Amino acid sequence: MPAGEYRQSSPEPNSFEEAGWVWGQIKAQARCDAEGEPALASYLYSTILSHSSLEGSLSFHLGNKLCSSTLLSTLLYDLFLNSFSTDANIRSATVADLRAARHRDPACVSFSHCLLNYKGFLACQAHRVAHKLWTQSRRPLALALQSRISDVFAVDIHPAAKIGKGILFDHATGVVVGETAVIGNNVSILHRVTLGGTGKVGSDRHPKIGDGVLIGAGATILGNIKIGEGAKIGAGSVVLIDVPPRTTAVGNPARLVGGKEQPTKHE
Amino acid sequence: MPAGEYRQSSPEPNSFEEAGWVWGQIKAQARCDAEGEPALASYLYSTILSHSSLEGSLSFHLGNKLCSSTLLSTLLYDLFLNSFSTDANIRSATVADLRAARHRDPACVSFSHCLLNYKGFLACQAHRVAHKLWTQSRRPLALALQSRISDVFAVDIHPAAKIGKGILFDHATGVVVGETAVIGNNVSILHRVTLGGTGKVGSDRHPKIGDGVLIGAGATILGNIKIGEGAKIGAGSVVLIDVPPRTTAVGNPARLVGGKEQPTKHE
Amino acid sequence: MPAGEYRQSSPEPNSFEEAGWVWGQIKAQARCDAEGEPALASYLYSTILSHSSLEGSLSFHLGNKLCSSTLLSTLLYDLFLNSFSTDANIRSATVADLRAARHRDPACVSFSHCLLNYKGFLACQAHRVAHKLWTQSRRPLALALQSRISDVFAVDIHPAAKIGKGILFDHATGVVVGETAVIGNNVSILHRVTLGGTGKVGSDRHPKIGDGVLIGAGATILGNIKIGEGAKIGAGSVVLIDVPPRTTAVGNPARLVGGKEQPTKHE
Repeated sequence: MPAGEYRQSSPEPNSFEEAGWVWGQIKAQARCDAEGEPALASYLYSTILSHSSLEGSLSFHLGNKLCSSTLLSTLLYDLFLNSFSTDANIRSATVADLRAARHRDPACVSFSHCLLNYKGFLACQAHRVAHKLWTQSRRPLALALQSRISDVFAVDIHPAAKIGKGILFDHATGVVVGETAVIGNNVSILHRVTLGGTGKVGSDRHPKIGDGVLIGAGATILGNIKIGEGAKIGAGSVVLIDVPPRTTAVGNPARLVGGKEQPTKHE
Repeated sequence: MPAGEYRQSSPEPNSFEEAGWVWGQIKAQARCDAEGEPALASYLYSTILSHSSLEGSLSFHLGNKLCSSTLLSTLLYDLFLNSFSTDANIRSATVADLRAARHRDPACVSFSHCLLNYKGFLACQAHRVAHKLWTQSRRPLALALQSRISDVFAVDIHPAAKIGKGILFDHATGVVVGETAVIGNNVSILHRVTLGGTGKVGSDRHPKIGDGVLIGAGATILGNIKIGEGAKIGAGSVVLIDVPPRTTAVGNPARLVGGKEQPTKHE
Repeated sequence: MPAGEYRQSSPEPNSFEEAGWVWGQIKAQARCDAEGEPALASYLYSTILSHSSLEGSLSFHLGNKLCSSTLLSTLLYDLFLNSFSTDANIRSATVADLRAARHRDPACVSFSHCLLNYKGFLACQAHRVAHKLWTQSRRPLALALQSRISDVFAVDIHPAAKIGKGILFDHATGVVVGETAVIGNNVSILHRVTLGGTGKVGSDRHPKIGDGVLIGAGATILGNIKIGEGAKIGAGSVVLIDVPPRTTAVGNPARLVGGKEQPTKHE
């Protein structure tokens, strides 16, 4: 257990109280870090301690990261805060994503570490807002957001892509997720992973990733194929075929190498 | 046909009128988007609607994206505008690149979408200016530009590399193109593609890519080898040998798997 | 020999005079470039010519690149300058890294080119400071720095990772180095290289890279395995086994293909 972690009895996942409990942990950690490292006090105050909710903190942090001289941080802050405040699904997904990083990534020392520092987490939350805008037919704004996420985090997720809860984008640099891709719940995706098209077919052209899948670094999964729940895709694989549930695929082109019960911790 | 696209009879590619027609499409799309999404109105005004030409808009957008606290946006704006205004070859290449994204990438909904949001397109246009500076023996400035493009877009193209017209760098994160590489016309290059050296030989040490080639995500092409026109390189391939025209190469190390007539749409 | 390089008799590597000699070369090159390219004069003055030491110049440049609206450049400047000024090991490593780029990368035209423009070099020097903070138990600050390096340079090195001297991170986009990885001296690492974990084991879970190793673009090396000194890892390889000294490993999964005496120049 890392120093400074405040372990209390944690409420059930996905409950309303859970978000409050996680936010309490984040504030306690930030206070502890600010006391131990005065050089960070001002940074932690502006990003976490001055906010009254996780949504406020996250909106402020994302607005600052994704703004530019022509796309102002205040506009983005309002946009994020409005989306998080009015959409309970996004809020619970954000909490599930924080838990995913904390539980599955051995290098993640606290929820606040993930909130402040994990560009995969931040890119995913910004995508959740871009996706909401897309479904509301606010497509130019959704596409502008996608572009900023790709510039700033080197993570390119089409706003139409559907992503479940409890997602860990670990390291995240170079991730590309296409327009018609679907990602289930509790999926772990390492850096340099592509969920792309083959160029051969039309509208529904990207992979469907089942619950609990683990996709290793640099894997390239192409076409409207199905990766079954609990499957594992080896690092550097090029996957062009369906992968059954709880099966591992490795190599270029990928071949199936057997079944396993559960993806394990990784990093 | 996406909503908001203004389809008129398009002039012949590469004609003088074509640039004006494309710019007219971009302004019409931006006006439509600004009306439908007030949150973007100020952004679209500053990036597109306030400019009288594609060169002005692109120079402003690139200057803002690539500037830093020590390399000012005004300096970059003047540099880009001067290069675009005085070089008809670059201008026609820019228009051909806009067409390439619009026609070959099913996720590209309009020219203005590409102009504003595609970091591969923006990196390529900035490279065209860096290349011009390189040929004018303004090498320190060309190298500074290369570095900013790599920082901001995660696309690292040596300013000496020669790149044709009608190029699509799709997604673009992680692309590396070496000093003596040559890329023909109408080439599509996905993200994470390397045109690099093997470390074994001297001055002319990078690949030559023929017209109409399609290079899949994560492909690594190394050495002074020739990829023939219309060839396709599979995702994740490691290519160390010449690939004949209209032939497909896949795998690590890549092997040839047959000939095809034309690379198809992809994403 | 590139134009503008000031070749004098160079002192012995790693001596105290060497740092002064390299800094003298950098200032002479910057003066030459500023005279030849007035558009860069202000940039070169603020980044190099106004500073009295390599440490000052590097601290200023890194502070500007890595700052954000909440993590101020002045704070980072002080942090870097303090670390460089009080740690002779970091200073000699920085000089050795400049030499590595200059000698091993044919595209590197001068020390100042590397200092100003090579994001792999800059990411590595910032990591050296993050690592020092980590060993001083200033972990929240070390992790904040890691995150900024990953945002800005797309290079994600855990601050606990141990890295030797004379390192070339060439192009650098997408590099990931895990918490318990160790990199020896005189190692060359191309872009998109991962030194990661397999997810199977506990605390000491990342690769150990021997002196003089060359790791090609896109190679993925996973687990607590040993890459022996002078080994070469082919581009795109997925390495899951120990590689003996002076041996080459290629493919996915990687196989050993023979021994060689020395990694050669590459790019």
